[in-house]
Amino acid sequence: MIVHAVTISGGDPLWDERPDPVPGDTEVLVRVQAAGLNGADMLQRAGLYPAPPGAPPDIPGLELAGEVVSCGRRVSSLSPGARVAAIVPGGAQAELACVEEATLMPLPDAVAWPAAGGFPEVFSTAYDALFRQCALGLGERVLVTGAAGGVGTAALQLAAAAGARVTASARRAPEHESALVALGAVAVVEPEDDAAIGEGGPYDVVLELVGAPSLERLLPHLATGARVSVIGVSAGAQARVNLLALMGARASIRGSTLRSRPLAEKAILAAEVASRVLPLLADGTLRVPVAATYPMEEAAAAYERFAAGGKLGKIVLSGPAH
Amino acid sequence: MIVHAVTISGGDPLWDERPDPVPGDTEVLVRVQAAGLNGADMLQRAGLYPAPPGAPPDIPGLELAGEVVSCGRRVSSLSPGARVAAIVPGGAQAELACVEEATLMPLPDAVAWPAAGGFPEVFSTAYDALFRQCALGLGERVLVTGAAGGVGTAALQLAAAAGARVTASARRAPEHESALVALGAVAVVEPEDDAAIGEGGPYDVVLELVGAPSLERLLPHLATGARVSVIGVSAGAQARVNLLALMGARASIRGSTLRSRPLAEKAILAAEVASRVLPLLADGTLRVPVAATYPMEEAAAAYERFAAGGKLGKIVLSGPAH
Repeated sequence: MIVHAVTISGGDPLWDERPDPVPGDTEVLVRVQAAGLNGADMLQRAGLYPAPPGAPPDIPGLELAGEVVSCGRRVSSLSPGARVAAIVPGGAQAELACVEEATLMPLPDAVAWPAAGGFPEVFSTAYDALFRQCALGLGERVLVTGAAGGVGTAALQLAAAAGARVTASARRAPEHESALVALGAVAVVEPEDDAAIGEGGPYDVVLELVGAPSLERLLPHLATGARVSVIGVSAGAQARVNLLALMGARASIRGSTLRSRPLAEKAILAAEVASRVLPLLADGTLRVPVAATYPMEEAAAAYERFAAGGKLGKIVLSGPAH
Repeated sequence: MIVHAVTISGGDPLWDERPDPVPGDTEVLVRVQAAGLNGADMLQRAGLYPAPPGAPPDIPGLELAGEVVSCGRRVSSLSPGARVAAIVPGGAQAELACVEEATLMPLPDAVAWPAAGGFPEVFSTAYDALFRQCALGLGERVLVTGAAGGVGTAALQLAAAAGARVTASARRAPEHESALVALGAVAVVEPEDDAAIGEGGPYDVVLELVGAPSLERLLPHLATGARVSVIGVSAGAQARVNLLALMGARASIRGSTLRSRPLAEKAILAAEVASRVLPLLADGTLRVPVAATYPMEEAAAAYERFAAGGKLGKIVLSGPAH
């Protein structure tokens, strides 16, 4: 059988034919109903972020939601027809995708497909950074840069839900202010407004989603014991860091990516997100702001929209069944 | 009564007369038998690191060992004559010093005065960085830069005692190699020998005691999940950090100082060091390499010796009774 997939071997995404994927022993074949776009797809399209070994080299896509079609012979927890969502190392933007059982999250019925397809990568990334890496606690002050993007909107909701006081920094602050406040921000600031950034601080936890120039700007606003997690560097990767200031604040700067982690770590994270975060999505505490959906065959237009920036929330591709 | 103290109000240390210090309710008056020199004293002498509020502004010295002379009225755990050691916010380099009871460590009889006076600051700093901040574990690879200094020799012994595999980087590597190996290093490398640094890695934990140029050099040698603790910047504080490399390694860089911490945190650290580290000093597992001792009244010569560098281990001032 031949199935269709988004491919990016030549740069711009195409809607192409590929052989039907066959699930391995521990894998599940999923009919993809929705697959979110992420910054990593843009990097991969530009040849800067190759798929890891084992992932389809030319089919992009790090997250998906869909229905189980069939299961490998050692899969025990799922049956055909089950609704699932997952982070995958690649290959999500296709009609069918093979996913490791251990990384699948059972999807509550209350979560619609576009939201489910735009949920796994950004909420897992934000959850991991805020809670597992930075140990965010009740009442702490948080700064999220690039707050209008996918990870940003996930992070500010998660931090607010955990009782933190969140300042959102976004390039189009005036345009997005009301939406970001509705998602839980107590203040929305422009990235170069040092005075406004200072007002919300000093910050105990910072999610740096923009890159070096943004990081350099916020270093003077760190609280004692601050934790900074860098998970996006689109504006630049070479940062100048004043180590004496870091010592004075007893602060830490850490970098992270999800994609390169071993399967076992991804499985642990998926289980935590499934048990702690998905229920909050199902009951409406959290939501996935979907800026736009595109049919999967119009991936080229979706990528263009993503690359243009300025959106609030996620761009999601819908599977061909819809 | 008039006592003597090292003073640095005018730059070079003098042996000066000061009024007899009177312990507060929660303080203990200690007759200082030994007081180690630290990099912070050099910074304070140069006017770059003023004493925190509550500490004598012009009497340097962050660590001491001695005998209890008298106790404030709310002190319950100590009696006159007890041997003690402590980190203090300043004022250690004097005949008498007032020390908060909560920060005092009872000193085993087996520990001689010079070692005891050179122990608290460097071993507490190294212990805090390795174990409390970087969660160093059995079998991990550790790089200690500036390994021949006070904190460096403490750190490599502590890391080796905890079952880590330690590479020591030191400016005078050939000269200090056998001493550093005797203290537990599996390899001793020169700071600019990238190949040798690479051989000992990739590193799970790095103690950066030198500063920005050293930090920049070791970033390519970090293991996945590496923790870098920066606690010295004598070679420069402005570091260029490649955030993408930090993300790829999922590494963290943290800064730390002990001096600015609140009393409660210092007390917790002192209790941990007293119960976990001091017994290892008493039984000979750890030792304080004392490069030289000077009578306290010859502090000027001791400071000169410290500033000249190249020593292995600590410079310690001996109290006038000795």
